Amino acid sequence: MPDTKPLLMIPGPTTVPETVRQAIARPSIYHRGAQFAELLSECNAGLQKLLGTACPVAMLAASGTGATEAAVANLLSPGDRILVINTGKFGARMGQIASRYGIGVTWWQCRPDQTADPDLLARFLHQVPFQALGIVYNETSTGVQQDLTRLGQVAADAGVLAIVDAVSIVGGAPIDMDENRLDAVIGASQKALMLPPGLAFVALSEQAQARAETCTNPRYYFDLPKALQALERGQTPYTPPVNLICGLREALHMVEQEGMAQVFARHRALAHACRAAIRAMGLKLVPTDDAHASATVTAAWMPQNLDSSELVKRVLHSSSILISGGQDELKGRIFRIAHMGSCSVEDLTRTVSAVASALSDMDMPTEPIRAETAAVQAYREAIGQES
Amino acid sequence: MPDTKPLLMIPGPTTVPETVRQAIARPSIYHRGAQFAELLSECNAGLQKLLGTACPVAMLAASGTGATEAAVANLLSPGDRILVINTGKFGARMGQIASRYGIGVTWWQCRPDQTADPDLLARFLHQVPFQALGIVYNETSTGVQQDLTRLGQVAADAGVLAIVDAVSIVGGAPIDMDENRLDAVIGASQKALMLPPGLAFVALSEQAQARAETCTNPRYYFDLPKALQALERGQTPYTPPVNLICGLREALHMVEQEGMAQVFARHRALAHACRAAIRAMGLKLVPTDDAHASATVTAAWMPQNLDSSELVKRVLHSSSILISGGQDELKGRIFRIAHMGSCSVEDLTRTVSAVASALSDMDMPTEPIRAETAAVQAYREAIGQES
Repeated sequence: MPDTKPLLMIPGPTTVPETVRQAIARPSIYHRGAQFAELLSECNAGLQKLLGTACPVAMLAASGTGATEAAVANLLSPGDRILVINTGKFGARMGQIASRYGIGVTWWQCRPDQTADPDLLARFLHQVPFQALGIVYNETSTGVQQDLTRLGQVAADAGVLAIVDAVSIVGGAPIDMDENRLDAVIGASQKALMLPPGLAFVALSEQAQARAETCTNPRYYFDLPKALQALERGQTPYTPPVNLICGLREALHMVEQEGMAQVFARHRALAHACRAAIRAMGLKLVPTDDAHASATVTAAWMPQNLDSSELVKRVLHSSSILISGGQDELKGRIFRIAHMGSCSVEDLTRTVSAVASALSDMDMPTEPIRAETAAVQAYREAIGQES
Repeated sequence: MPDTKPLLMIPGPTTVPETVRQAIARPSIYHRGAQFAELLSECNAGLQKLLGTACPVAMLAASGTGATEAAVANLLSPGDRILVINTGKFGARMGQIASRYGIGVTWWQCRPDQTADPDLLARFLHQVPFQALGIVYNETSTGVQQDLTRLGQVAADAGVLAIVDAVSIVGGAPIDMDENRLDAVIGASQKALMLPPGLAFVALSEQAQARAETCTNPRYYFDLPKALQALERGQTPYTPPVNLICGLREALHMVEQEGMAQVFARHRALAHACRAAIRAMGLKLVPTDDAHASATVTAAWMPQNLDSSELVKRVLHSSSILISGGQDELKGRIFRIAHMGSCSVEDLTRTVSAVASALSDMDMPTEPIRAETAAVQAYREAIGQES
């Protein structure tokens, strides 16, 4: 089997560890038997720990977008209204999905470097009757991480369901679904969970489950009440992606072995290290406040007149490392380094060093060794503080 | 890596060959790059050969049911009417999906052992204005295979779109989508295509593509026009199940190496052999006419007063072979043996022998050796006739 090449430092798909790949390659098991029921139950329990919830988690053969549609289409009916905190591409997507279903969408447009203010949210929610609030916990397109601790609470106090897209962060940072009173939390396999793409999931609170029961949108494959009924019997309504679920069990074992707190600490430290390296290169981060910087993906502005697409190409060709450029209106203007899942500090230092070299070649004077050193030091400091 | 155990002789998931499992276990590739575009294009071409079409094939991370919903929800709008040839569980499912979308469903209820008469269909379609005809090419729940050669033609002549669920037969029997004037053909990975579940697809005719453009149903993840636009750029709109698509390429290579005609001949011969063995046991097949018997799954009635759930259990415990019982109203009354994908005549003879033994133990006198011999002879005859 060939080695992982190039090194994937993009926000999904991420590197899939060897043991997870082996688990996926094992012969399929029958999805209507006791063996599968046990697998599903084990994975459900593992995801519940990562999501900080006692709520059931519906698993779907789908991408994260499919699971987001499932959440939106089950919790809102035509004529309902959703307030979407729009911090980038994935906030926009949640709103677009809602629009398709005849749900009224109000955008709370945030600058790409900002997060939503809970006090302002409270005022919004008391002025206009919304049925749901859409939050992208970790906006992959800008590297901005929302502070969920108060947003869910404010929504719950206003009787509004909080729908959280946590696709690019489940497994990389704590989520306290129950404590933060979140109603739907959406995740997918190919990000911090270290799996190939094709598996996504939605955890639903009791309120969300009740709403889904009365929802009038047409849906069949994404019928979440049906998925939760099947889950009680240890099944899924339709044939599930069995092999990916076997891989998920292995990935959850890995998280357990490293320790959930340690996994989150490693992600925080990697993010800290990545920011330090980028600052050492003399570049500006997209999130202006480190408190809002993502634990799993770091976005930085390109120097004036340089195109990030060119940077991505150079890093790939010189070092066989894949990083990301910007999307949509940020195309060419920012670059993004993801540091999630099985990512190590060595992977990160290799990456920042390659980025610095490529920038030098593009006539932006940077010293790879400074970026690398800054990353290593920052990582050590952060990990030291954690332990 | 452990061996395939038990032997899966159920209509999905089926045995995944070692090389396909290895292909799936390789490191993920980025889904927005040239390497993926090449993979997608190669798989599209391979599926087009199997489906007998020059039409594009949209690939989805979903089960076959998800792809069926995609076809129905993109080709029919609320208020439209579909005539569903209902020969069992999966015909019923297509109708249920349509109902959820406010599409009027007329059932053409067939007995489980019957196929639809094209002349009768022509009369139906001229009396009532339907927008679509729903056909399950291979009804997995009863082992009945429709004759598509005239059904699609009759529908096309009446200006009605033919939607064909071919989930449990793509790769196991010829499909002539273009010649038979079919408009949507739906397939999935975990059947005759020898892959784990999680990947499904829909091929759309030009008429179907045009209809999808004007369809008013709410949909986002299953928006097929968007999928076909992305396909032209060598992409999918949302993150695809990359590793399963890598597995698909390998499975398509295997089909090419064996020869498509040879693969279909092997399936026909296995089906012939399975029927011969069941008759040798003194049992009755569900399809009364061999011309309508499925190439990929054979269904037989249980002897009076014996329960097929018990048979399934005994075969599993005595021989580590998994066969299927009946579903819904056929539960307990029929058993089903699937012989698709990488299935060999040895797999089949082991299975019929185990079934005969188990029936003997259940006080139905059968001789395993007779069943086995009948299978081997019938297989040789059939393969001999083919070559």
